[in-house]
Amino acid sequence: MGSSFGQQFRIATWGESHGGGVGVTIDGCPAGMELSEADIQPDLDRRRPGQSRVTTPRDEADRCEILSGVFEGRTLGTSIAILVRNQDQRSSAYEDFKHIYRPGHADYTYQAKYGYRTWQGGGRASAREAIGRVAAGAVAKKILAEKFGTRIVGWVQQVHTIAAETGWEGVTPEAVEANMVRCPDPATAERMIERIDQARNEGDSVGGIVRCVAENVPPGLGDPVFDKLDADIAKAMMSIPACKGVEIGDGFSSIALTGKEHNDAFYMEGDRVRTRTNHAGGILGGISDGEPVRVSCAFKPTATIAHPQESVDDQGNAVTLKAKGRHDPCVLPRAVPIVESMLALVLADHWLRQAAYRMGE
Amino acid sequence: MGSSFGQQFRIATWGESHGGGVGVTIDGCPAGMELSEADIQPDLDRRRPGQSRVTTPRDEADRCEILSGVFEGRTLGTSIAILVRNQDQRSSAYEDFKHIYRPGHADYTYQAKYGYRTWQGGGRASAREAIGRVAAGAVAKKILAEKFGTRIVGWVQQVHTIAAETGWEGVTPEAVEANMVRCPDPATAERMIERIDQARNEGDSVGGIVRCVAENVPPGLGDPVFDKLDADIAKAMMSIPACKGVEIGDGFSSIALTGKEHNDAFYMEGDRVRTRTNHAGGILGGISDGEPVRVSCAFKPTATIAHPQESVDDQGNAVTLKAKGRHDPCVLPRAVPIVESMLALVLADHWLRQAAYRMGE
Amino acid sequence: MGSSFGQQFRIATWGESHGGGVGVTIDGCPAGMELSEADIQPDLDRRRPGQSRVTTPRDEADRCEILSGVFEGRTLGTSIAILVRNQDQRSSAYEDFKHIYRPGHADYTYQAKYGYRTWQGGGRASAREAIGRVAAGAVAKKILAEKFGTRIVGWVQQVHTIAAETGWEGVTPEAVEANMVRCPDPATAERMIERIDQARNEGDSVGGIVRCVAENVPPGLGDPVFDKLDADIAKAMMSIPACKGVEIGDGFSSIALTGKEHNDAFYMEGDRVRTRTNHAGGILGGISDGEPVRVSCAFKPTATIAHPQESVDDQGNAVTLKAKGRHDPCVLPRAVPIVESMLALVLADHWLRQAAYRMGE
Amino acid sequence: MGSSFGQQFRIATWGESHGGGVGVTIDGCPAGMELSEADIQPDLDRRRPGQSRVTTPRDEADRCEILSGVFEGRTLGTSIAILVRNQDQRSSAYEDFKHIYRPGHADYTYQAKYGYRTWQGGGRASAREAIGRVAAGAVAKKILAEKFGTRIVGWVQQVHTIAAETGWEGVTPEAVEANMVRCPDPATAERMIERIDQARNEGDSVGGIVRCVAENVPPGLGDPVFDKLDADIAKAMMSIPACKGVEIGDGFSSIALTGKEHNDAFYMEGDRVRTRTNHAGGILGGISDGEPVRVSCAFKPTATIAHPQESVDDQGNAVTLKAKGRHDPCVLPRAVPIVESMLALVLADHWLRQAAYRMGE
Repeated sequence: MGSSFGQQFRIATWGESHGGGVGVTIDGCPAGMELSEADIQPDLDRRRPGQSRVTTPRDEADRCEILSGVFEGRTLGTSIAILVRNQDQRSSAYEDFKHIYRPGHADYTYQAKYGYRTWQGGGRASAREAIGRVAAGAVAKKILAEKFGTRIVGWVQQVHTIAAETGWEGVTPEAVEANMVRCPDPATAERMIERIDQARNEGDSVGGIVRCVAENVPPGLGDPVFDKLDADIAKAMMSIPACKGVEIGDGFSSIALTGKEHNDAFYMEGDRVRTRTNHAGGILGGISDGEPVRVSCAFKPTATIAHPQESVDDQGNAVTLKAKGRHDPCVLPRAVPIVESMLALVLADHWLRQAAYRMGE
Repeated sequence: MGSSFGQQFRIATWGESHGGGVGVTIDGCPAGMELSEADIQPDLDRRRPGQSRVTTPRDEADRCEILSGVFEGRTLGTSIAILVRNQDQRSSAYEDFKHIYRPGHADYTYQAKYGYRTWQGGGRASAREAIGRVAAGAVAKKILAEKFGTRIVGWVQQVHTIAAETGWEGVTPEAVEANMVRCPDPATAERMIERIDQARNEGDSVGGIVRCVAENVPPGLGDPVFDKLDADIAKAMMSIPACKGVEIGDGFSSIALTGKEHNDAFYMEGDRVRTRTNHAGGILGGISDGEPVRVSCAFKPTATIAHPQESVDDQGNAVTLKAKGRHDPCVLPRAVPIVESMLALVLADHWLRQAAYRMGE
Repeated sequence: MGSSFGQQFRIATWGESHGGGVGVTIDGCPAGMELSEADIQPDLDRRRPGQSRVTTPRDEADRCEILSGVFEGRTLGTSIAILVRNQDQRSSAYEDFKHIYRPGHADYTYQAKYGYRTWQGGGRASAREAIGRVAAGAVAKKILAEKFGTRIVGWVQQVHTIAAETGWEGVTPEAVEANMVRCPDPATAERMIERIDQARNEGDSVGGIVRCVAENVPPGLGDPVFDKLDADIAKAMMSIPACKGVEIGDGFSSIALTGKEHNDAFYMEGDRVRTRTNHAGGILGGISDGEPVRVSCAFKPTATIAHPQESVDDQGNAVTLKAKGRHDPCVLPRAVPIVESMLALVLADHWLRQAAYRMGE
Repeated sequence: MGSSFGQQFRIATWGESHGGGVGVTIDGCPAGMELSEADIQPDLDRRRPGQSRVTTPRDEADRCEILSGVFEGRTLGTSIAILVRNQDQRSSAYEDFKHIYRPGHADYTYQAKYGYRTWQGGGRASAREAIGRVAAGAVAKKILAEKFGTRIVGWVQQVHTIAAETGWEGVTPEAVEANMVRCPDPATAERMIERIDQARNEGDSVGGIVRCVAENVPPGLGDPVFDKLDADIAKAMMSIPACKGVEIGDGFSSIALTGKEHNDAFYMEGDRVRTRTNHAGGILGGISDGEPVRVSCAFKPTATIAHPQESVDDQGNAVTLKAKGRHDPCVLPRAVPIVESMLALVLADHWLRQAAYRMGE
């Protein structure tokens, strides 16, 4: 279980890194929207390994095919199924770890949960699982952009100890895509790339922070109590492999402020209620207030490294694990479209859920 | 919607701060467990306002009544309904803000969502909503303790800029309850209390960090992909009012490490797979690995302060808001049982969900 | 589990016949609707035992209390909790069956499921569970009436072999309530009452058919594939204790027709698409077509009878069961408001779910 | 929405009759089970059109491909995705009805719901949607057979007014498959085939009754209150296109009995609780009692006929519809594997849900 996300804009991903393919179904996409593979492929290309030297060298074409839910170029309102075939399945690369629990990976916990697992490429814990998220996220982005002019942009804010000067405002997709590390601060981007190169050369890996902002979000999205907008965002982000922390707005930094400093004062801008500051990250009481939604995600350093590591095998023997071949020393740049997608999915879901709330009027 | 949480151990809370009462139903609690109000009341008392001078002066008895699901002292396996009647409803205290959106509160966003709201005590955004969480959490804690000897303990790690020296290990409930701020580091606790007193005197408020650890968690809990154990924990915590950030294990601090430093090496302890370190916070690939589960939550400074604040009313007029009476300058101590409860709820839910996974064997 | 119903207008019932009370929470009722106990009590009174001599002699006041979700007489959009306290708990009446599985009852199956059960009044299988359904159904009826002028009326069509002449059209609540058996055909009603009296005198029981129609249902309600409107209605009805069969429109009788005879021809009535006949019962492809929704439910004869019956006890001994005291020989009249409620709940839920479908326009 | 079914053994179907294909994902299938396409294809072949002269002449190969969730021939416990490509898409056959609402079909209601629809082959209302159900049902059947020796067999009990003599016991798959109408009573089968041939020759269609029984069902499956086993079965069956009525056990016939006659007496068979009769159809209080589960489904006559019919187009004009080409005068034989599949899906789901119930012991 656990392969579906959302309630009214509901996605379900499937597929392992090795097997026939990976994919997603989207149930609840409104009818009548223009949609084709061309809306989806660009984000898949941003997630794809092999797009630059700072990512994994595996080259996967990841061409998507819409199998259902679209007729004559418009959505039918029924399930949209999207398929991406697997390629480049070098299962032999994993043969040596067949019986070994790789530290930092899900090998042991899958075995503990299921009593059976695929040793090929991590199964559902594979990074390829995110293809379904990104494909569905592209659809969610499109809906939100058309309905509200919502702009969702994510970027790499920090790699290891190297943090960008970038603030929350004014980040453009162009600035993000201008370099291979997806940091809109060009000078810092250069240093990040150097740091990643260093990690690769040392057989090591680094983590960092991805930030994401959604502008033009209508007020009123999010449910009270458990399905708060920020709660669902936190879940969405923490469900991305390697994510270990999530903040909304000022997050942990809000602690340094007192209530007087932190409360965002209300004022009127024409007939629209606005706040002077946005410490809250666009969400009050779990419901969007119309200000930009701001999210930060901490990603741990990638688990796959080229160093020998102490571990055990599935028979309970102590072993030393040594990875072979090249590794991906930093997933941050490829995580950016995934973070954007998850934010878009939560917003689209809550927008559609909101539809029912005002029916009493 | 959004008032229910969990899938197999599923709770639904209801109730506003003003009205007949607040409560919770628990659907999915296994049959045959001993249960009475005495298992629940102690945690409600820890959440209750008025228990010490660092919390809100409102004195609420919060006596719980189990209305269903228990027969002759044992659970029936059917829905357990728990009711706490409201008292001390001084709605006049809110009369002045009837038409004003309080900064940092959910007044405006509720209005934006529903087009109608109660101006008495925040409605569902009231702190009293947590009564249902804590009551259900007490049941979840009891199950986990009986089944696995699971111990869940939370504490206040930081208030404003004052951080405890407390590490992740060895914190006891006794040390936590030894002082009114629920910080197991007595010297820091004193300074925290002073800081809270200062905030009260200044009409201001402070936030901080609550930490929580669960020991003796069986491996295998958590679903791959979206319903990861850490993802559900993140949602659970972020759904607590005023929570703005969540970390699992090292969280944002993991960024300072490289993969070589961060990966937790596996070793055998008898026939049990263990890890040498626990940077991951007991969760790998979204599934528990048997090590202690570690969570940190950032709480923003309380929104209610005694300072005049810029705001608007529901007619779009600029107004200055000035709170009356005493306020609660720091919710951290009372948030501790809520954080513990949410962690217990997620673990109990995933334990019961896990039941179905190994049926194929 | 299994105590909740609906997705967007979601109810959860709780409570056993013996214990503190029974109740329901409604999550998803739109905000701003006028609502008070006076909207709910009349249907509870129609379900209540002791209202006439053809029902069980137990006299239960069943006064409802709205505990949350309503402020100044209007719904808040948040969970509405409704409580009915238990009274008249003569557990001694059940003492003799403490260890015996009553034929036709759920004693054995609850024991098989939970390994523990209450022997007092059937636990969740008690007829009192329906109080929550009827209370929530009254709210759903009110919404639908206000929004669409929807009229939902149910009646007893058949008792044992005595069938009313009543057709699908023109049945009024007044005609239904004009006699204690709730059959709008007065002559047949007399014969039904005689048949029920006879069953009581013989210590036996009888079943029958309840019909229900909803007029002024907007077209477009119901989801394709699994959550079809008729599928959800079938589930709703079959979840009522003692219901063993459900039909939509002509149901089993449609078999006697050929396609040429059964297809309902479309025509225009002004700008509204209508059908000449309504064999389909207002639902095509699982979606309402705007014609009256028609449902028939078969109820088996009541399981509690005064005759000695062969059975076993929970130790596996053969026993002879003999009921004491008076019994309820026919549940049909009291089932009428339950059937109406379940139909209203399904329609209200699908109406709110439908809200999201046209958002793409 | 509405494209998924089940909670713990959860399936989601997707696909229209025209487009890339149809398929299903199964989330929650236990790990470690042997599974391949060969387990699924036989039931798909039984559903396939063109298998005999009494079904539609369209010949569809319907070869299935398992895309995920299986590794080295065994299930991983993660989502199983199954794909069947579309072929034989003669959209021109539908071109004439592009703007016409076909009586008895979902054309008008889809338009009312979505405001946009595919005119090719009925979209999600196409009979091809059942491919996903049957594929998933084959997996559910396999689990149940391996775990409990559960045998599920369905058959055609009645076609138009021609009813088989077949009782509930002793029906074998071999007897069912021995003739093209899937009626285990060979003499009646001949007459049914004649009746279907007659309907085809007259350009008309006929409906009937499919029965299905599950033997070796463990007691304890089904949840109290709303998710009763019979309630979920009723929903499952009523969600099959053209199904208009569902009965459990004696169903509507139970009305002819009194309580004394209908109650199934308990007795011990060794250490197993049995009932002397099975009027209840293996379910008491919504929970299986270990006796065979018995279900009857009424199917209306097929909507597609060759006669001219009165209708309207999507501009509100009166039109006369005349179907072209050959039609399928009776869906009953092909509905048999679908009915079996839905019963298997409900049972597998409740078996896995039941796993959590006894955890308290």
